[in-house]
Amino acid sequence: MGTNRGNQPGAELLYEEIAARISGMIEKGTYHPGERIPSIRNLSRQMSVSVNTVMEAYAQLENSGLIEARPQSGYYVRVHHPEPKARLARIPSLEYSAPNDVVLGDTPLEIMRTLKNPSLIPLGAGSPNTGLLPADKLNRMLSSQSKRFPDQSITYAPPQGLKKLRVQIARRLLNSGCSHSADDIIITSGCVEAVTLALLTTCRPGDTVALASPIYYTFLNSIQWLGLKVLEIPSVHGEGLSLEVMSYAMKHTPINACVIIANFNNPLGTLMPDDRKRDLVKMLAKHEIPLIEDNVYGDLGFGPSNPSSLKAYDEKGLVLSCSSFSKTLAPGYRIGWIVPGRFQQRVEQLKSLFNISTASPTQLAVAEFLTNGGYDHHLRKIRRIYARQIGQVRDAVLDNFPPGTMVSRPEGGFILWVEMPEGMDAFKLYQAALKESISIAPGMLFSVSDKYTNCFRLNAAYWSDQIEHALETLGRIAESIV
Amino acid sequence: MGTNRGNQPGAELLYEEIAARISGMIEKGTYHPGERIPSIRNLSRQMSVSVNTVMEAYAQLENSGLIEARPQSGYYVRVHHPEPKARLARIPSLEYSAPNDVVLGDTPLEIMRTLKNPSLIPLGAGSPNTGLLPADKLNRMLSSQSKRFPDQSITYAPPQGLKKLRVQIARRLLNSGCSHSADDIIITSGCVEAVTLALLTTCRPGDTVALASPIYYTFLNSIQWLGLKVLEIPSVHGEGLSLEVMSYAMKHTPINACVIIANFNNPLGTLMPDDRKRDLVKMLAKHEIPLIEDNVYGDLGFGPSNPSSLKAYDEKGLVLSCSSFSKTLAPGYRIGWIVPGRFQQRVEQLKSLFNISTASPTQLAVAEFLTNGGYDHHLRKIRRIYARQIGQVRDAVLDNFPPGTMVSRPEGGFILWVEMPEGMDAFKLYQAALKESISIAPGMLFSVSDKYTNCFRLNAAYWSDQIEHALETLGRIAESIV
Repeated sequence: MGTNRGNQPGAELLYEEIAARISGMIEKGTYHPGERIPSIRNLSRQMSVSVNTVMEAYAQLENSGLIEARPQSGYYVRVHHPEPKARLARIPSLEYSAPNDVVLGDTPLEIMRTLKNPSLIPLGAGSPNTGLLPADKLNRMLSSQSKRFPDQSITYAPPQGLKKLRVQIARRLLNSGCSHSADDIIITSGCVEAVTLALLTTCRPGDTVALASPIYYTFLNSIQWLGLKVLEIPSVHGEGLSLEVMSYAMKHTPINACVIIANFNNPLGTLMPDDRKRDLVKMLAKHEIPLIEDNVYGDLGFGPSNPSSLKAYDEKGLVLSCSSFSKTLAPGYRIGWIVPGRFQQRVEQLKSLFNISTASPTQLAVAEFLTNGGYDHHLRKIRRIYARQIGQVRDAVLDNFPPGTMVSRPEGGFILWVEMPEGMDAFKLYQAALKESISIAPGMLFSVSDKYTNCFRLNAAYWSDQIEHALETLGRIAESIV
Repeated sequence: MGTNRGNQPGAELLYEEIAARISGMIEKGTYHPGERIPSIRNLSRQMSVSVNTVMEAYAQLENSGLIEARPQSGYYVRVHHPEPKARLARIPSLEYSAPNDVVLGDTPLEIMRTLKNPSLIPLGAGSPNTGLLPADKLNRMLSSQSKRFPDQSITYAPPQGLKKLRVQIARRLLNSGCSHSADDIIITSGCVEAVTLALLTTCRPGDTVALASPIYYTFLNSIQWLGLKVLEIPSVHGEGLSLEVMSYAMKHTPINACVIIANFNNPLGTLMPDDRKRDLVKMLAKHEIPLIEDNVYGDLGFGPSNPSSLKAYDEKGLVLSCSSFSKTLAPGYRIGWIVPGRFQQRVEQLKSLFNISTASPTQLAVAEFLTNGGYDHHLRKIRRIYARQIGQVRDAVLDNFPPGTMVSRPEGGFILWVEMPEGMDAFKLYQAALKESISIAPGMLFSVSDKYTNCFRLNAAYWSDQIEHALETLGRIAESIV
């Protein structure tokens, strides 16, 4: 560290710079995986910066998965375990399969129900950690706002939603690279409603929807119900949907809409790089194909800033961007939104036919939380915790599962994807785990093909001795079914 | 009254008996329309009953439209004005027109928007009187329940809805002749969502839905969006949908579902008699046609007991009964429900794909209101007010509009249907009224045919000097466009 010591007086290093330097040293092998890095106090002396600045730098490094804190011991360079292998489509035609009807059997529907069973250890659930939601503050705001605006609270909100909530959302959208006004936004009862409205607006029964595979199972379910066909486009490691296969597919079949979770994808956890986002939006725009974005994990990135929204690259109003506060504030409040671009009028009409408008009291409460509740502070807190837990769950899987098991390395959210060695049956694991009161989401839920029978999705929203123990149990079961 | 005087000691008359006697005297001409009947104090002495008992009897007579209270003056027999003429289909084939696609032009959509414009005098709106909703009590319960159940308030309710709310609703359904358990009920975000779920569950695009004409315009709108065809069955005076035409239609075209507002129909205000309800349910069941019931005005009858639900006659699980608290408690809370019969599993799946579940805090608040809020007391109060106002708006129309104008005589709810002499144009009236900041709902909204161009719907939820003046203004405009 010698050369970096003794900065100019009055020019103290920013924590980002310190983080960048330590990160560089790890990359170049100055510190090896498993090795301890300087303590906070030492580094603060070495670099002549405050203890707080070093703490912030280490928090950032921890969030990005580079180092880990070990209780009573200090900070260590993380041992990097392998990730699920790339599925780069070198020959798109080989990765392409034609659109399919979705016919979910009883088994997937039954599994989806168990994922919501509150008496199971929820490793298969997709919901956030209830303990990390600001229940008291939100419920206080629910009270104060309904007292302050009694008539507004009990009467219909406009179908588009309360203006003060839309204003707050419009301001926040800047974080993901989007400049919108409140008028561009429609409030929905959660993100799922937003996506359903978007599908109903852009597709007619029999139409084809392209999605990155593996696919969030709720989308498959909706596609089945709406009488649509699914076109599964493979995901490429670290990039999301394969643009090469997509490009090939567009030439070989008509596509009516595309649904994408670009940021911390469910179930892979992938963050699509900005240039791929731009390319995807451009490619679809060229063929006038509407792009439905689900950005519900966008506020949960572990990096220093929010990832950009696909909507940020939308020049033709073809992106319908959907999100909600269900992962960060209160799923039970059912507050989401959609920025529907050129489909605005139709989405608004459809929303009013669905349920007239979203409940008023929870709109008021969320608007107040965004204005005076410290949402950013809250986000920093939960992002840090999820980042740590993603690492903990990941390590526990790799420590306990048969050799050859790979785990994704999400840079945001709280969802992990596990790929066991080929031939292993995740549905068997699911069944045996149920007997131990543990739920997991087996790969069969995420495709109409049988491509993911050796995979499953894990929820890292919780960490406790019980969870750690459950992961050991899962590993033991997996060893027994190899 | 002589012969009724001096009852046996200890056998005081019930208020129902007193009401029946007065009603009989009016019928037989003992008291003529416009005449004053005995004061409460006098009748109490004459019949040796308490003042309270007479008050209750008079309230019942007032609710049923037989007498009216005039401030500082006493009770009078109401002057009965004519009602819209019967449309009895003597020759069903003449009243039958084949199913139609719904293609709403810009004008109806524009009108629907003006009906929600809060800066207009809302004679065209379909919403209840905000001032009659128990805002403070509900909002207090919203606060107390979210404090008491903080986690339940912010987390997802089950797709079916909170059990304690469903239990309360199940108990209340007994009032309309239905015995259900909480398990038979699914909570929805209002009645419109319930009906939309029911349509999506029972119909596929291209299917035909039969409805009593004139049709609540939101249904027409939904039918258009879902790609369905509408089959308009004429309404018969005092009976709702013509069973004769329905029977004829069933032989001549396939019908996939039927949507009915049997109780205080929107827009006519008609209450379908029990025997017609039974016949309709039976007739549809014979052909296995699902019957979607909208019973949102069911709690707003002016008679002594709730009218029966169509569901009460359902022996085959083919009736999907929908309702909500939007007309009686809080439209902005978005709490409704559906009892879907044999379609339960599919409706529940579809609900969870729509928006996972209905907002938790408002479910908690409504459950608490039904348990401890005095809902029945509240209903008695607003029914009395709506009954009086229906009479007031009715009289004002008949006093101010051109001769030959007829007004429906609803026995519940707060919606009236006005039929001006043939050849008069309600859309012209609508346009001229808008310039005076008054909204009405012209007949063109309620059909795909041009059958109701001389009709319009009025909202009697409000009464004030301003409303009275607005009705005078409307009448003056109508005179000018004869």
